[in-house]
Amino acid sequence: MAKHKYAIGVDFGTESGRAVLVEVAAGKEIATAVYPYSHGVIDEFLPGSKIRLEPDWALQDPEDYIRTFKKTIPAVLKQSGVDPADVIGVGIDFTACTMMPVKADGTPLCRLADANARKNPHAWVKLWKHHAAQPEADKINMTARQMNQAWLDRYGGKISSEWFFSKTLQILDEAPEIYAAADRLIEAADWVIWQLTGVETRNSCTAGYKAIWHKRDGFPGDEYFAALDPRLEHVVDEKLSRTMAPLGGRAGDLTPQAAQWTGLRPGTAVAVANVDAHVSVPAAAVVEPGRMVMIMGTSICHMVLGTQEHTVPGMCGYVEDGIIPGFFGYEAGQSGVGDIFAWFVDHAVPPEYHAAAKKRKMDLHKALELEAAKLKPGESGLLALDWWNGNRSVLVDVDLTGMLLGATLATQAPEIYRALIEATAFGTRVIVEAFDKNGVPVNELVACGGLPEKNKLLMQIYADVTGREIKVTASKQTPALGSAMHGAVAAGKKANGYDSIFDAAHKMARLKKETFKPIPANQQVYEKLYADYVTLYDYLGRGANDVMKRLKAIRAEARY
Amino acid sequence: MAKHKYAIGVDFGTESGRAVLVEVAAGKEIATAVYPYSHGVIDEFLPGSKIRLEPDWALQDPEDYIRTFKKTIPAVLKQSGVDPADVIGVGIDFTACTMMPVKADGTPLCRLADANARKNPHAWVKLWKHHAAQPEADKINMTARQMNQAWLDRYGGKISSEWFFSKTLQILDEAPEIYAAADRLIEAADWVIWQLTGVETRNSCTAGYKAIWHKRDGFPGDEYFAALDPRLEHVVDEKLSRTMAPLGGRAGDLTPQAAQWTGLRPGTAVAVANVDAHVSVPAAAVVEPGRMVMIMGTSICHMVLGTQEHTVPGMCGYVEDGIIPGFFGYEAGQSGVGDIFAWFVDHAVPPEYHAAAKKRKMDLHKALELEAAKLKPGESGLLALDWWNGNRSVLVDVDLTGMLLGATLATQAPEIYRALIEATAFGTRVIVEAFDKNGVPVNELVACGGLPEKNKLLMQIYADVTGREIKVTASKQTPALGSAMHGAVAAGKKANGYDSIFDAAHKMARLKKETFKPIPANQQVYEKLYADYVTLYDYLGRGANDVMKRLKAIRAEARY
Repeated sequence: MAKHKYAIGVDFGTESGRAVLVEVAAGKEIATAVYPYSHGVIDEFLPGSKIRLEPDWALQDPEDYIRTFKKTIPAVLKQSGVDPADVIGVGIDFTACTMMPVKADGTPLCRLADANARKNPHAWVKLWKHHAAQPEADKINMTARQMNQAWLDRYGGKISSEWFFSKTLQILDEAPEIYAAADRLIEAADWVIWQLTGVETRNSCTAGYKAIWHKRDGFPGDEYFAALDPRLEHVVDEKLSRTMAPLGGRAGDLTPQAAQWTGLRPGTAVAVANVDAHVSVPAAAVVEPGRMVMIMGTSICHMVLGTQEHTVPGMCGYVEDGIIPGFFGYEAGQSGVGDIFAWFVDHAVPPEYHAAAKKRKMDLHKALELEAAKLKPGESGLLALDWWNGNRSVLVDVDLTGMLLGATLATQAPEIYRALIEATAFGTRVIVEAFDKNGVPVNELVACGGLPEKNKLLMQIYADVTGREIKVTASKQTPALGSAMHGAVAAGKKANGYDSIFDAAHKMARLKKETFKPIPANQQVYEKLYADYVTLYDYLGRGANDVMKRLKAIRAEARY
Repeated sequence: MAKHKYAIGVDFGTESGRAVLVEVAAGKEIATAVYPYSHGVIDEFLPGSKIRLEPDWALQDPEDYIRTFKKTIPAVLKQSGVDPADVIGVGIDFTACTMMPVKADGTPLCRLADANARKNPHAWVKLWKHHAAQPEADKINMTARQMNQAWLDRYGGKISSEWFFSKTLQILDEAPEIYAAADRLIEAADWVIWQLTGVETRNSCTAGYKAIWHKRDGFPGDEYFAALDPRLEHVVDEKLSRTMAPLGGRAGDLTPQAAQWTGLRPGTAVAVANVDAHVSVPAAAVVEPGRMVMIMGTSICHMVLGTQEHTVPGMCGYVEDGIIPGFFGYEAGQSGVGDIFAWFVDHAVPPEYHAAAKKRKMDLHKALELEAAKLKPGESGLLALDWWNGNRSVLVDVDLTGMLLGATLATQAPEIYRALIEATAFGTRVIVEAFDKNGVPVNELVACGGLPEKNKLLMQIYADVTGREIKVTASKQTPALGSAMHGAVAAGKKANGYDSIFDAAHKMARLKKETFKPIPANQQVYEKLYADYVTLYDYLGRGANDVMKRLKAIRAEARY
């Protein structure tokens, strides 16, 4: 291999898209370009209109995804000086479930010339964090329980309002004309691959985790959908597809039009779409059971591989081949982590800390971290429940709320900051133990995402609380690297790529040498605090005292 | 009565002393002067020394009390132009238990020429909030339980570390030489009266509420004190007195020396000493059962009169004739109220609120109150336990801590501020109901102190939560007015004063016309929130889950 070959990974995030050009043999990241979506998250008005969205809505403009290709891929080619002929493959990953209604030719309904369609919010892309489909999710869950649907167990007993059929049912409920006009309902991940290759290819990962699809059992039966709503009876055959492409496969070749957008050669291999969290697992060098990958940012997504099918209470779901071929890919999550720290910094830190951080030219998070790091475990006297944004795993309950206990007249902001970090670490431990006790061992943690880079105290606390060593990915853009790896696998060994994601992971993925090991003295204290965390977790989270739900109900009554 | 007569009340607070000159016939407050103690609260170093105090210590310099007389009484005379011959009486009230060791002639041990005494912190005045005698309080309580001492029930089952014998035992434990050198151990309230009259006169109020004295049973028996510590066996006869002067009585006449300090005439009537909270009751025009007086500031003191002897769980104590002659005076308290709001404003409000308040030239408390007032009951979705400074009534537990529940990523500072106010109102309701259900009716509330002046939202919430009308005293300096009333009673009707505190209260005490009445719609919501408050109160405060105590123990271990 005299000449280097390259792959490009494109990571479609919530606010922007990012392309990374990676050298294939050793995984070296050569160039990066980011495109902030021109319309970002649409949660107030539809673009160019005065049509106001309801609370909890979150939409996107699919044209922003095409612009991401047009802006970022030429940019990384230019930055690196790499010959497009040496780019052997392209892979992408996306937020999920981020879905949209399109015509049979792939045209999004919001992009039709028909102004009536454009003006209907349901014609646009529903972003993962569109939270307005809770009544539909409730109906999906209730109907599933009534009909004793076995698949419910695969998702911790509850389908989320964020997922595919909740959003689908909301379209049907609120805009039946949009539902009728949509020839296809599709994940944005698959839609962008369709735009690159000209072929509709649906990936098994989003289908499995977000659309109740199972490798052997397929989707829930038509009779279930009919019970949900008679108009939905044939939704799978009418709007989806029963054929799913496995991860690591080749979705197709780059079309001449997409080649024109990107500056790549027509015919370049394009990988099957993937999800940002899931694609990070091989990019974190994890292609075997026993090691949990944590994608740590505003929230945490926990991924672990298993050799057998197990039901783990409160997980988000498990999918055979859903992360790495040959394994059951298990997913769990914490719905608020970095978001809670950001809330605290924005809403509960007095001016002197802001001023001191500014004086030191330091981010306030960093300043609080340094102060909090001076405290010993338990020294704050505080204990929190990390439910500011509900609890995803293991309670699967969006109506739970945050709690802080132990405050005195001497309590200081860095103590609360530390207690909040500790609470999220306890939340992770609950998840780790749920897996560990239910046949999916977790011996080691591998972290990626923004938080591990930013907050060493947090990482040490997570190691101390979970009693497990934590490794950190070398790449700061793990999802994009994972997508590039899938691009190299789509190209295959004959094209100087790889024939499997295992090979790609061994060659292209790297971890930092520095790891976080549990400190025994800290573990001892956290053992006690964790016991109290669990007691309160169970008391307030499992029905003994539903005060949080009552407060939410009283609040809703007071507001409307 | 052609010529007006006057009385002076002197209120000895935590940080300063205040004199008010009051016209006797109608209670008009003519002049006020305040003396900020030169040494304030001594909690770091002994004055003029490098002797550092332990945490939780709080001392005072008795010379500051004398200086209060010297500075404030001449000042009110000068301001008003009143002829000293027309001042018929002087009364005082004091924080309690604020106590000190003195020689037989009244000289405080810390004022002896002997430098060794001066350098011993135990030679100084122990202020009410000196909290370092908890081990001694624990021993007092344990011994009392072991010996089945009936008096324990009079104090809600627990003697506080703030009270007289806890402080006495701490002196004996830690400085037996000071204990031995002290001819008398005395409340500062009684000591200042001694300084004015030349006669040691002990008041029944502090004795009853703070020193386990009972009108018929007297002090605990010598055998109890001997069990506590053999050296304490004869403490009452050696260091105290078994004779108590009733409130409203005349302690004596102003000495020539005191006349020189104050500019008053020698022989002016001096009333028996009183406590700041208790003296406020007649000054709030309450001289009958059924109306609870709340002295609302950093904490709340609740006082109510009863015609019969009842044991109310968790009250601070009851004393026959302890507030108004002929009634049982019941006292309860909330250890943190204004203090919690101050903590919040200082430690948990982000800069934009500080800036906005500053821009409006408004106190931040006021700005938050205005924002919080825009919310409906229940609209914050939050619920708090008001235990930032422990819980005095009804749980009598200093190891309880604050809790906030219901936070989301959208929670704003004014919502928390309102939740904290509501929590203190719920805390008051628990106390009101404890009395009401145990034979001491509470039909109406009368508020005095700093908070009712400052925060109308708070007053309305208290009315809504307790379901009771709240009246507010017209005077902004109720304790000093109450002391002046007692001065007028000490002088008696013959001297153009009054023969009883009932007469004085009818003539001299006034309430504002504006009252706070419960709003039925608000009451309905608070009924629900209160039910949840009580559930959490019982769960976290009565032993079902002692997490707060465990956190304090873990914190103590981590710190030391």
